[in-house]
Amino acid sequence: MSRYWSKVAGGLTPYVPGEQPKLPNLVKLNTNESPYGPSPRALAALRAEVGDTLRLYPDPNSDRLRESIAAFYKLKPAQVFVGNGSDEVLAHTFLALLKHDEPVLFPDITYSFYPVYCGLYDIDYRQVPLTESFEICVDDYMTPNGGIIFPNPNAPTGRPLSLSEIERLLRSNAESVVVVDEAYVDFGAESAVGLVDRYPQLLVVHTLSKSRALAGLRVGYALGDAELIEALCRVKDSFNSYPLDRFVQAGAAAAIDDRAYFEQLCAKIIATRARLVSDLASLGFDVLPSAANFVFARHSQRGGTELAAKLRERSIIVRHFKNPPRIEPFLRITVGTDAQCAALIAALRTILA
Amino acid sequence: MSRYWSKVAGGLTPYVPGEQPKLPNLVKLNTNESPYGPSPRALAALRAEVGDTLRLYPDPNSDRLRESIAAFYKLKPAQVFVGNGSDEVLAHTFLALLKHDEPVLFPDITYSFYPVYCGLYDIDYRQVPLTESFEICVDDYMTPNGGIIFPNPNAPTGRPLSLSEIERLLRSNAESVVVVDEAYVDFGAESAVGLVDRYPQLLVVHTLSKSRALAGLRVGYALGDAELIEALCRVKDSFNSYPLDRFVQAGAAAAIDDRAYFEQLCAKIIATRARLVSDLASLGFDVLPSAANFVFARHSQRGGTELAAKLRERSIIVRHFKNPPRIEPFLRITVGTDAQCAALIAALRTILA
Repeated sequence: MSRYWSKVAGGLTPYVPGEQPKLPNLVKLNTNESPYGPSPRALAALRAEVGDTLRLYPDPNSDRLRESIAAFYKLKPAQVFVGNGSDEVLAHTFLALLKHDEPVLFPDITYSFYPVYCGLYDIDYRQVPLTESFEICVDDYMTPNGGIIFPNPNAPTGRPLSLSEIERLLRSNAESVVVVDEAYVDFGAESAVGLVDRYPQLLVVHTLSKSRALAGLRVGYALGDAELIEALCRVKDSFNSYPLDRFVQAGAAAAIDDRAYFEQLCAKIIATRARLVSDLASLGFDVLPSAANFVFARHSQRGGTELAAKLRERSIIVRHFKNPPRIEPFLRITVGTDAQCAALIAALRTILA
Repeated sequence: MSRYWSKVAGGLTPYVPGEQPKLPNLVKLNTNESPYGPSPRALAALRAEVGDTLRLYPDPNSDRLRESIAAFYKLKPAQVFVGNGSDEVLAHTFLALLKHDEPVLFPDITYSFYPVYCGLYDIDYRQVPLTESFEICVDDYMTPNGGIIFPNPNAPTGRPLSLSEIERLLRSNAESVVVVDEAYVDFGAESAVGLVDRYPQLLVVHTLSKSRALAGLRVGYALGDAELIEALCRVKDSFNSYPLDRFVQAGAAAAIDDRAYFEQLCAKIIATRARLVSDLASLGFDVLPSAANFVFARHSQRGGTELAAKLRERSIIVRHFKNPPRIEPFLRITVGTDAQCAALIAALRTILA
């Protein structure tokens, strides 16, 4: 550590994102991107932004994009916050809404960026163990807390939590914010967006990186009561006035407006997932029930580390977590195209033979 | 304040950016954008990014862009940090390098985002008054501090500080970081980039929003010793793994590579500035010596509030700061095209008649 670093900088344990390999011809099933490209309407909107107006600052409030998102969910623009990827939205959420005297609660096996945000902003937290079947049990969260956050479906397990359980948690937890991180919700889980008008402590976070096939554009959003959104805006306006560039605002709005393309894309991935789950099961994998665009699977005989390495030798990249030890046997496999999934299954068949 | 807000969110006084009006046909001289569009090579690179690969995450480390910036300044990529606008770069800088026990020092009249960052991250600061002629006096900064930051040229005054004075400050201030915010340096001030290899406490911050005509793309960068850059990376990787989207990385690299276009653009603005200064002087304005793409001018008879309002009635927008009272008489006027500056002068002539 350099003498010039702040104590904060020296004390951090940064997040390690999934690998973004620069090699071509890989079957890339490691970071849950869409195997299909974005909406043609989004591409047309992006193309239209290439020009001299790029010399001008973008709209600092992303009004047009927030209106599209509000219309999609039948909310008001004042209930919508947008950011540079859902990671930025989550970062602002931790600082604006989850930093209190009591600890924030989140699952022990979940998106591993949550404890990193707590480190960045000096927020106390407590990790709540998933059940033996890797499920979130909402009763375990009914304890004094400074906020609650979990993905639904959870990552990297893919398991969804029912809307009735989420509502049961909200009813018993009125005094602190409950964040439902719905990065993967469009692939089969029940969204909590419909509860936003009834629970002022509910914040729902989405991303365009998965079901809108725009991971390369970096945009995420939060939906919630206008008072929660205002807190996020206050932090955003104390950090970066213009977090979304002109391309992001135009392309994201067009992607949200193209509901038909979005629904078709989700349906294709859900169909491929069903085949993938069945093929993996036939090879001896135990696959957790997934409502996401990935599956979390362990083999009855072979370890996760070994399988991930052997797939890699065959130019197939999946995600493997060494920690916590409980999930070491698992592979997290993105649902790719049918052809990519077939290549994965063929490779696994050879490896397991 | 809502009961759900953190103390941090409740205590903030957010930055207020210059207005981004949605009306067409304005002469917009209020936020120091380039009056000319970006490099055609940047536009071509942006156009090439429109496609299915937007489904994939961008390079989290922006290697290609960092290599272009390093090559431009004859530095190593490890001496380059990039962010979502220089505002994000500055935010990370405050948290990673300027949060210490002693207060950060910056001028009393300067970029008004600096105290906002201090509020966001609970950093103690002390504002050092400019001289009567609105200059930075480096002797005033030779006191125990947790870091020093100032723009060069300063904003909103436009006055530059000489490289020899900056080096004198660096020699006497080895124990804390000195940040030179060179957002406007390309329009006539001396850059401190050449000192980076000799002073491990020096961080130089740039933006593509001004001299590269890409305010709509949101990209800024910091140049400094690899140890300083590492601290910024640690904060960035604890906040958002992928702050720069695929468009930004491609377009910004192409803009940096196009040195000829950049030099031509700066030369045009410098030439227009000379005429603007002389025209303003002939109308009775006192114009501070500017090394930026804006001028800071006060009229001998008329107040800044009045002049800004009357210009606005004529669809000409300039920036006016009510505080501190010392700068109330001034207008900050972006150097536009020759035609825009002529329209401004004609309007002022009518107003002052």
